[in-house]
Amino acid sequence: MPELYDVAAIGNAIVDVISPSTDAFLSDEGLTKGSMVLIDDAQAEALYGRMAAGIEASGGSAANTVAGVASLGGRSAYLGKVANDQLGEVFTHDINAIGVTFDVAPLIGGPATARCLINVTPDGQRTMSTYLGASIHLNPDDVDAKTIESAKIIYLEGYLFDPSEARRAFAKAAGIARASERLIALTLSDSFVVHRHREALLGFIDSEVDILLANEAELTALFETTSFDTAVRSLRGRAKLAAITRGEKGSTVIAGDNIQDIAAAPVQKVVDTTGAGDQYAAGFLFGLAKGRPLDVCGRLGSLAAAEVISHYGPRPQVSLQDLAAKGGL
Amino acid sequence: MPELYDVAAIGNAIVDVISPSTDAFLSDEGLTKGSMVLIDDAQAEALYGRMAAGIEASGGSAANTVAGVASLGGRSAYLGKVANDQLGEVFTHDINAIGVTFDVAPLIGGPATARCLINVTPDGQRTMSTYLGASIHLNPDDVDAKTIESAKIIYLEGYLFDPSEARRAFAKAAGIARASERLIALTLSDSFVVHRHREALLGFIDSEVDILLANEAELTALFETTSFDTAVRSLRGRAKLAAITRGEKGSTVIAGDNIQDIAAAPVQKVVDTTGAGDQYAAGFLFGLAKGRPLDVCGRLGSLAAAEVISHYGPRPQVSLQDLAAKGGL
Repeated sequence: MPELYDVAAIGNAIVDVISPSTDAFLSDEGLTKGSMVLIDDAQAEALYGRMAAGIEASGGSAANTVAGVASLGGRSAYLGKVANDQLGEVFTHDINAIGVTFDVAPLIGGPATARCLINVTPDGQRTMSTYLGASIHLNPDDVDAKTIESAKIIYLEGYLFDPSEARRAFAKAAGIARASERLIALTLSDSFVVHRHREALLGFIDSEVDILLANEAELTALFETTSFDTAVRSLRGRAKLAAITRGEKGSTVIAGDNIQDIAAAPVQKVVDTTGAGDQYAAGFLFGLAKGRPLDVCGRLGSLAAAEVISHYGPRPQVSLQDLAAKGGL
Repeated sequence: MPELYDVAAIGNAIVDVISPSTDAFLSDEGLTKGSMVLIDDAQAEALYGRMAAGIEASGGSAANTVAGVASLGGRSAYLGKVANDQLGEVFTHDINAIGVTFDVAPLIGGPATARCLINVTPDGQRTMSTYLGASIHLNPDDVDAKTIESAKIIYLEGYLFDPSEARRAFAKAAGIARASERLIALTLSDSFVVHRHREALLGFIDSEVDILLANEAELTALFETTSFDTAVRSLRGRAKLAAITRGEKGSTVIAGDNIQDIAAAPVQKVVDTTGAGDQYAAGFLFGLAKGRPLDVCGRLGSLAAAEVISHYGPRPQVSLQDLAAKGGL
């Protein structure tokens, strides 16, 4: 197949509801700052009722990443499931508008489009409570083999390891990618996901994953250590390539014995860290797909992450291609 | 009746869809920068399909104003109509979450919740295309007399002069307010609205309005002049009190022969002017309801407007009460 796409991603198609919050509110709601928990319809309604007024924006981790790839001037496709409701229309509009190919048929007569209720504390940290709704009804028939076969990199969310019908779709996508010798990239998504599915994730990394994306907390959770250096050593021999984000400390790119630290890009004020890891992944994978050196891939990741944390909302508000050009990348 | 509310407002209940745009896009779409046009369902769908990815946020001019009053620590109520759909839930949640009393029953089986498609150009100007949907189905039965009777100020949108069922509800609210000797405030809303309904607006101002809010373009349109000074002179003897906003030039507060210029509050970067006039009105009306001197009312307006134009979205993202305290107001 010709390589139509730089990155094709599969993930939970989610609309974010983003509200300012306080540490006391998180505590009252029993939420752990910086984490993601799954909630059901009734819990979502109750929590939403207590949250402050906010804004809505298309989200979903892997969807944010392919939106970032498009903003960088790359070609990308997305596989995920929304319902035929207003939030589903919003999600579909936004991902198409940025130039991502997305044509999975919406779910009819089932649960509503997935929502992620995001409480943003004054330090810019986001705490997420996700109602998966229609997103878990992505099924293997929704995974178009041609899309997978024509992408340089297939990008998968660790979130998909949570129990859901979508995991079969995930397995099909991974199988087709392997069969057609495409690169498989995986994000660990969340340290609680890692705790829940540690063995399955390690097995999948060993057998299928070419490129691992994670943050420091997720990587240390994967190897059950508190030491970043120990976790990095544990990674050797497992993933050919890994990029680990470390917040304001930047990121570390690991390719066998070649370990490079990449600085974070400067940010005037951190408003909302939602989507930081997703945009780092966008920059890193875009760079890889374009054959750029690893340090440039990391710097593209830093640049994309810095843009998204400077405002509310999980996707770039300005052209990352322009930003990269201005930054000499 | 006891005065439960500082401000009760009646208006079109609208969810904003806010996307970055270019001057060329406005030109291609035949849109006049800075204006508001009404569009039907099909036009809304077509325009939305061509707009860039954006964010959704609860809007509606008068709803933004009462949200601002609540953010300043005032008590406010809102009368407007949404549908029983996802965007209607978002609108209801957001206005309740900020502390505004809103309990009009949603429309069932009719058009969807109103949407305003807002294209924001790099200069921060917003150009609005509004699908009124359910909002115009506000009817006189939805206007609770007790709410009107227990507010110090009743605030009405000029937008309601556009043909709609809601205009009868507007007339009922104005009648009750007059009968119970409440102050009636009116915003001219938009210069195109003024062109469409000039005579009706002038008649209403002469017979019912205590406090007029407008921007410079709307006021000059009302008196069919290009001169701000001529327009201000024409206003004498018509409205007891008027506050006219003039963008970065600040505002002018007119009370008979007492004419005061109020400076704009400083803004680091103008991101999106959506809601600037609405928030100015919030500060001004809150100050009036609290019995503050007119120059302080104007400065409260400037402060609230400066906050809202520094980010995407038509409502305050931080507590205006805290901002006012920091600013010595």
